[in-house]
Amino acid sequence: MHKRTARKHHEFALIDKYWRAANYLSVGQIYLYENPLLRRCLEASDVKPRLLGHWGTTPGLNFVYAHLNRVIKHHDLNMIFVTGPGHGGPAVVANTYLEGTYSKVYPEIPQNEQGIQKLFKQFSFPGGIPSHASAQTPGSINEGGELGYALFHAYGAAFDNPGLIVACVVGDGEAETGPMATSWHSNKFLNPKTDGVVLPILHLNGFKIANPSILARIGHNELRKLFEGYGYKPYFVEGDQPEEMHRLMAKTLDKAISDIQAIKKKSKNEDSPKRPSWPMIVLRTPKGWTGPERVDHKPSVGSFHSHQVPFSEVHENPEHLKLLANWLASYKPEELFDNEGKLFDEIASMAPSEQRCMGANKHANGGILLRELDLPAYQDYAVSIKKHGAPFISSTGELGKYLAAVMQRNQGHFRVFCPDELLSNRLGALFTVTDRQWMGENHPNDEHMSTQGGVMEILSEHACEGWLEGYLLTGRHGLFACYEAFIHIIDSMLNQHAKWLKECRDIPWREPISSLNILLTSHVWRQDHNGFSHQDPGFMDHVANKKPEIVRIYLPADANTLITVADHCLRSRDLINVIVAGKQPQQQWLDMESSTAHAKAGASIWKWASNDDGNPDVVIASAGEIPALESLAAVSILKKHLPQLKVRYVNVVDLMSLLPKEIHPHGLSDLLFDDLFTTDKPVIFAFHGYPGLIHRFAYNRTNHHNFHVYGFQEEGTTTTPFDMVVLNRLDRFNLVKSVLRRMPDPETYTELNTLMDSKLSEHSQYIAEHGEDMPEIQEWIWEN
Amino acid sequence: MHKRTARKHHEFALIDKYWRAANYLSVGQIYLYENPLLRRCLEASDVKPRLLGHWGTTPGLNFVYAHLNRVIKHHDLNMIFVTGPGHGGPAVVANTYLEGTYSKVYPEIPQNEQGIQKLFKQFSFPGGIPSHASAQTPGSINEGGELGYALFHAYGAAFDNPGLIVACVVGDGEAETGPMATSWHSNKFLNPKTDGVVLPILHLNGFKIANPSILARIGHNELRKLFEGYGYKPYFVEGDQPEEMHRLMAKTLDKAISDIQAIKKKSKNEDSPKRPSWPMIVLRTPKGWTGPERVDHKPSVGSFHSHQVPFSEVHENPEHLKLLANWLASYKPEELFDNEGKLFDEIASMAPSEQRCMGANKHANGGILLRELDLPAYQDYAVSIKKHGAPFISSTGELGKYLAAVMQRNQGHFRVFCPDELLSNRLGALFTVTDRQWMGENHPNDEHMSTQGGVMEILSEHACEGWLEGYLLTGRHGLFACYEAFIHIIDSMLNQHAKWLKECRDIPWREPISSLNILLTSHVWRQDHNGFSHQDPGFMDHVANKKPEIVRIYLPADANTLITVADHCLRSRDLINVIVAGKQPQQQWLDMESSTAHAKAGASIWKWASNDDGNPDVVIASAGEIPALESLAAVSILKKHLPQLKVRYVNVVDLMSLLPKEIHPHGLSDLLFDDLFTTDKPVIFAFHGYPGLIHRFAYNRTNHHNFHVYGFQEEGTTTTPFDMVVLNRLDRFNLVKSVLRRMPDPETYTELNTLMDSKLSEHSQYIAEHGEDMPEIQEWIWEN
Repeated sequence: MHKRTARKHHEFALIDKYWRAANYLSVGQIYLYENPLLRRCLEASDVKPRLLGHWGTTPGLNFVYAHLNRVIKHHDLNMIFVTGPGHGGPAVVANTYLEGTYSKVYPEIPQNEQGIQKLFKQFSFPGGIPSHASAQTPGSINEGGELGYALFHAYGAAFDNPGLIVACVVGDGEAETGPMATSWHSNKFLNPKTDGVVLPILHLNGFKIANPSILARIGHNELRKLFEGYGYKPYFVEGDQPEEMHRLMAKTLDKAISDIQAIKKKSKNEDSPKRPSWPMIVLRTPKGWTGPERVDHKPSVGSFHSHQVPFSEVHENPEHLKLLANWLASYKPEELFDNEGKLFDEIASMAPSEQRCMGANKHANGGILLRELDLPAYQDYAVSIKKHGAPFISSTGELGKYLAAVMQRNQGHFRVFCPDELLSNRLGALFTVTDRQWMGENHPNDEHMSTQGGVMEILSEHACEGWLEGYLLTGRHGLFACYEAFIHIIDSMLNQHAKWLKECRDIPWREPISSLNILLTSHVWRQDHNGFSHQDPGFMDHVANKKPEIVRIYLPADANTLITVADHCLRSRDLINVIVAGKQPQQQWLDMESSTAHAKAGASIWKWASNDDGNPDVVIASAGEIPALESLAAVSILKKHLPQLKVRYVNVVDLMSLLPKEIHPHGLSDLLFDDLFTTDKPVIFAFHGYPGLIHRFAYNRTNHHNFHVYGFQEEGTTTTPFDMVVLNRLDRFNLVKSVLRRMPDPETYTELNTLMDSKLSEHSQYIAEHGEDMPEIQEWIWEN
Repeated sequence: MHKRTARKHHEFALIDKYWRAANYLSVGQIYLYENPLLRRCLEASDVKPRLLGHWGTTPGLNFVYAHLNRVIKHHDLNMIFVTGPGHGGPAVVANTYLEGTYSKVYPEIPQNEQGIQKLFKQFSFPGGIPSHASAQTPGSINEGGELGYALFHAYGAAFDNPGLIVACVVGDGEAETGPMATSWHSNKFLNPKTDGVVLPILHLNGFKIANPSILARIGHNELRKLFEGYGYKPYFVEGDQPEEMHRLMAKTLDKAISDIQAIKKKSKNEDSPKRPSWPMIVLRTPKGWTGPERVDHKPSVGSFHSHQVPFSEVHENPEHLKLLANWLASYKPEELFDNEGKLFDEIASMAPSEQRCMGANKHANGGILLRELDLPAYQDYAVSIKKHGAPFISSTGELGKYLAAVMQRNQGHFRVFCPDELLSNRLGALFTVTDRQWMGENHPNDEHMSTQGGVMEILSEHACEGWLEGYLLTGRHGLFACYEAFIHIIDSMLNQHAKWLKECRDIPWREPISSLNILLTSHVWRQDHNGFSHQDPGFMDHVANKKPEIVRIYLPADANTLITVADHCLRSRDLINVIVAGKQPQQQWLDMESSTAHAKAGASIWKWASNDDGNPDVVIASAGEIPALESLAAVSILKKHLPQLKVRYVNVVDLMSLLPKEIHPHGLSDLLFDDLFTTDKPVIFAFHGYPGLIHRFAYNRTNHHNFHVYGFQEEGTTTTPFDMVVLNRLDRFNLVKSVLRRMPDPETYTELNTLMDSKLSEHSQYIAEHGEDMPEIQEWIWEN
C-alpha cells in the first residue's frame, strides 16, 4: 500500500470511528437513562420510560458532520452547519459534544461517563433539551421543528460574510415545502466576491414520516437536471457501505471545496463577478442507516418505520431490549471511549481546532459578532411641520431618506429585504446610496440592479423573512418592508423566530442579536385600488399572541413619528418590531420633538386637537395613520358644529401600551390609562386593524365598557380610499354619529346626525358618478 | 400558396384580430370612461379620472387565451383557464366578454357599444369589479390578488376529472414564490388515466413590479433543465413579432395537445400508468407587448415601467392623451367591432362553441357540478360510552373509521389531504378503503401507495390547501388534516379563500360549493414531545377575523362530538370549518345522542358533571379536549374536597356560540348566554387557545368581568403532557386554586389551596426524576 493511500485509509478508519461515536451517542440520547457506556449488561431499567426523538435522519447527519470536520481541518475552513432536518437533533447534540463545544457551553455536561449519562438523560426530557436542533444547540441558527427554512437561513448567514462557508443539510422531506423549493434560487443573489458560500447537501433518505419523498423518487436524471436547472453543479454520493461511502464523500467534499475555492479566487479579481455554478451534494443513504435491519419482522433500515424511535416497549419486550443492546454494541463503544468515558484522543483529533469547530463558530452565535449600527441623528430627517396637518407627503417616503442614510453608513452589515415592492412602498431613496443585489442576467431596461447592494428583492415573502432571519442570527441588522396583507405569508416563520428569541432569553451563552424589524405598508386602508384581496390588517393579532417580552407593534400616524419609531427599533435587541405606516401622501401632524415624546409615552393626548380642559365629554382615540386622519376630521366636525362639546383626542402609537403593565413591559399603568381614557366617558376608538384586538388588550381597564371600537370588518372591495373607511364605519361621519349616540341626550343632536347621514349619501352618489372621492374629502385639511 | 397554408394564414389573421380586440378592450378597461370605440376623437374627458389596473402581463394573457380557443375548437377540448398573473384581470374580463360569457352572466353588459362602455367603466371603479381575476370573473377559480397558488388550484381542479384540461398561466413573478416553486411537483401525483391534465404555460415577460424576474434571467439552458428536472417536457415560444408568434404558438399548442392525447390514450389500457412527461410551455414575450414603445423618453414595452398603467396624467398632459389615442387606434377597432359595437362575426367565430368557452365551463363554477356526498349514518360510528370518561381511546382514531366510510362511498369526489401526517394523526383507518395517490417511483418498503387513491400526502401545507381549494372550487368535497401549529403556514391562503367565499355571496351565478374543512390535531397540548416549535393554537384567532358568515370553529371534547361535528361540516356549503381535536387516547364523555344535541346547542351545561341545581357558586367552563379533561378533573377535586360548593360545568364546542347573536349566526342570545354562565358568578374558563380570544368574543356579555380565562401563554417546551398544562396554568390544580381565589371567603379554603400547591410541587419533582407524569395523573378517571 502506498504511504498516501495508507494515510487516507487510516484517516477514513478514524472518521468511521468518529461517526460511530456520534451514532452511538445519538441512539443513547433517544434510549438510555443509565449505563451510558454499556459497562454492564443492558437492563430494562437503563432505558428511559418514555422514548422520544428521531433516528431516521440522524446517522446521515452524523456522517455529513464528520466529513465536514475533515475538510475544515484539511483546508482550515471557517464553516457553520445548518441542520435542515432538525428532527435529527440527536446528531447535532452528539457532534457538538464530541468536538468539545457542548461541554464548554454546558459545563455541567463534561466529556466523561457522567457527562454522557447527563447528555442522554436530558434529551427530550422534562427540564432538558428539545429533540430538534434548536436555540439550545451550540452552532445552530435554525430551529428544526418546522421545516423549510434552512436554506434561506444559510444564505442569510452567507450574505456579507465573504470568508464563511455555510454547509446546509436539506432533508428530502422539507425539500417538498414551498419555501425550500424556491430557496434554491437564492444563488441568483449571492455575490462570490463579497458574500460567503452556501454548500447545500440534499440528504435523500427516501422517506418522510410515513411517505416516500418526491426527490428520492424521480430518478437520477431528473434530479440532476432539477439542480442544474436551479443553477448548481450537483455531486452525487450514494450508497450504504460505510467504507465506500467514506471514500466517496471525502473525495466529493474535496472536489466541492476545490470548486468553491476556485470560484472565490476567480471572483477576487472581478469587479462584477458572474454568477457561478456553485457545487451542491446529493447524499443518498438509507433511512435509519446502521440501525436494526428489521424490527418485529418489519423492515427498519431503509424504511419509514425508522423515522422516529425505531422500536419502543423496551421495558415490556425482552426481544426489544436485546435488539437495543445489540444495536448499541454494534458501534463498539469500547473502541471509542476510554475508561473515563472520554473519546479516545486519536478519534477526537478528527474534530477541528477549537475555534474552527462548527458548534463553536461565532457566526452561529451572531450576537458575539454584532457591531452596533452607526445611526444618523434621526432628527436630521425631521419633516418640518408648517402647521398641524401640513405638509401633505408620504411618510414612508420620508422614512426612505432616513433609511438611505442608515444604509450608507452601514454597508456590509445592514440590509433591506422586500418582495419586489421597495419602489411601490416609496422607499426608493435607498437607491440613491445602494442597489439591489442581483446575480441574474441583465437587461438594458433594468434599474438599480448590481452584483452588490444593500437591497434584496425577490417575489417571495418567505425568502425575505428567511434571509433576514439568517442575516440577523449571524449578527447583522436589517429591515423587511412588506405589503400589510401579504405578511401573513410568513405568519408561521414569525412564530418560529419569536419562539427562538424567547428561548434565547434563558440561554446565557447566546448573545443578544438585532431585532427583527418589519415595516408594513401599502396597508388595508389604501388598497382601495387593488381591492379585497389586498386588505388584511390581521398580522397584528398574530403578533400579539407571541410572548409579550418579545413583541412590539407601532402605528405611527405621521412621518416624524415613523422615523423616531424606526430609530428606536433599529437600536433594539432580541425583539420583533412591527411598524404599520402609510405610503400615500398624507397630512403630517407632529414635529420631531413631539413625535419622540409621543412615541416614548406610547399613547398621549394631542392637546392641540382637543378642547377638553382635563374633563372631556367624550374621548376620540385612534391608532394608525388613517384612523388618525378620520378621527381628527371627526373632532374637527364636532368642534365646528358643537363647540360646547368637550372633546379629547388620544393617539396610540405603541399598541402594547394598551395592555396592562403586568402583562407587557410597555403597558400603561391603570392610573395612566385612566388619565388618558377617563373612567366614565365614552371612548370612540378608531383602529387600523380588527376591532377585537383593542377589546382583547383593554378588556380589564376601568372604562372598557365605554369603549366603542371601529376598525376593519372585512368590508373591502375595489373602491375609493374614503369609501374603504365608510364601508367599515371608520369614517369621520360615522365616528361623529357614534359620538352623538353616546351623548346623554342624543336627540339634542338630530341636526348634526342628519347632516352626517346626508354627507354619507352624498359620498356614495359622488363616487358612483365620478369614481373618486368628493373634493371636500380629498382636500380636507385640519384647520382648528 | 397552398390551400392549407392559405387557410392557416387566414386563421392566424383572424386570431390576430381576436387578440387585438382583447388588447383593445383591456386598454379600454384601464383608461376609458366614454367614447369606448373611438367613434370620435379621444378627449381628456373620455378618460377615467383615476387610472388603475395592470397592463404589463395582459397582452400575453390575451395571446394565450386566443390560442387556447383555437385548440379547443380544433380538438373539441373541455378546458378551463387558470390565470396565475391575476393582475391581468383586464385580459380575462376582455376574453370572457368577447366569447359572450360575460354578457350571459352579466346581462347588463351586452355585446354592443353601450355594453363595452359599461365594461370599461366598471373596471376598478367603485361598485364595479376588482382589477384582478377574481370570483366575479366568469371562468375563474383563482383570485389573482395574492400570487403563488394558481398551479395548485389547477391540479386540484384536475384530480378526478379525467376529461378536463386545465390550462394554467404562471407569471414569472409568482413563479418566485415558495408555493409556486413546489407546485410544479404536483405532477408526481396526477394519474393520466383517472385524472385530468394540467397544461402549465410559464409566461416570461421579464419583469415584476420593478425588478427583473429570476426565471427570465437564468438563460435558456438552465430554464429547460429546471423544467425537465421538474418532470415536464418544456416547449419554448419566444419572440415579439405577432405573425411569427401566432404561427409558433399554434404549432406548439398543437404539439402539446397531441402529446397530451397520446399520454391519455396510452394510459387507457394501463392499470397502473407510469408518470409521463407532461408538456408545458414557456412563453417569452415583452412586458406590455403592443403597448407604447416609450413613454416620457423612457422605455415602456419590454420594461417594468409597463407593469401597471403605463402612463397616467392623461387629463393634464396632452402628449399622454395623444399617446393613448394612438395606442388605442393601433388596434384598429374599426376592423374589429361593427357599427353596433359587436365583434365582427368572422372574428367572433374564433371563440369556441358556447359550452366549450373557458369562461362558461361548468368546472369553473363547480357548484353547478356538485354531487351531494353519500354520507353514512354517523351514529353507526358512535363510541359506546361505558360511563362518563370511558373508554380511553383516540378521538381522531374513531373519526378515521367514519371518514373511511365516507371515502368508500364517495370515491372520485371526496379526498383527504395531509402533509405526511395521516398516520401520525391516527386517521389510518382510511387505508382500509383507499391508498395515497402517488406517481413517483416505488420502493418495496412503501405502504399504502397507489397510482390512484383518495388520500393526497405531500410535505407541504401549501400544496394540501391549494389542491383542496382547487378540488372544492370545481365542485368536489374534501378534508385537510394538519398539525395545529403548522396550519399557520397557510394563513394567507385561508384569507384568500375566505375572501373568495364572501364575494361569492353577492354573485348570483356562482353556485354554492362544499365547505373547506380543516381538521387540526397533534395540537398544542399534546406536543410535549416535539416541544415549543410544535405548540401554537393561534389559527383560531386568525380564522376568527374573517367574516362571521363564512367561518366556524369547533372544539369537540371527545370522539362522538368530533364525529357529529364532522358530519355537520361535510354537509355544509360555502364555509370554512375548523375542527380542533386530539389524537392521543383520551377519556370519552358523551354518547352520540348527547354529543349531537350538545354540538347543536354550541355550548351547554354537562349536568352529570355539575351539582349546582340551577344556582351555582362557580362556573367552570372549557373549550377543547384537554381543557375539558382538566376542568372535569378540577370539578372532581372540588366535589370531593368541598362537597358543599355548587359547581356548574359548561362545555363549549362551537366557539362562535360565544359571540353575540347579532355578530355571528351561531352566537348565543344574551339570555341563553346568561343562563349558562350566570350574570354574577365567577367563571373559570379553560380554553384550548390563547385566552385573549375568549375575552374578545365575550367582552360585552353581562358577566364578562367575572370571566377568568386560562389558555396557552406561550409557555411551551419539551416536557410531559401534564406539565404542558401546568406551565400554562391550565391544569386541574391551578384551576381549583383559581376557583378558591374567587370565593367570597378565600381564607376558608386554605387547606385545599395548600393541597393543590403540594400537588404541583409533587408533580414537578416527579417528572424531573421520572421523565413522565405521576401515576395519579396518568391514571386519573372521572368517578363522580
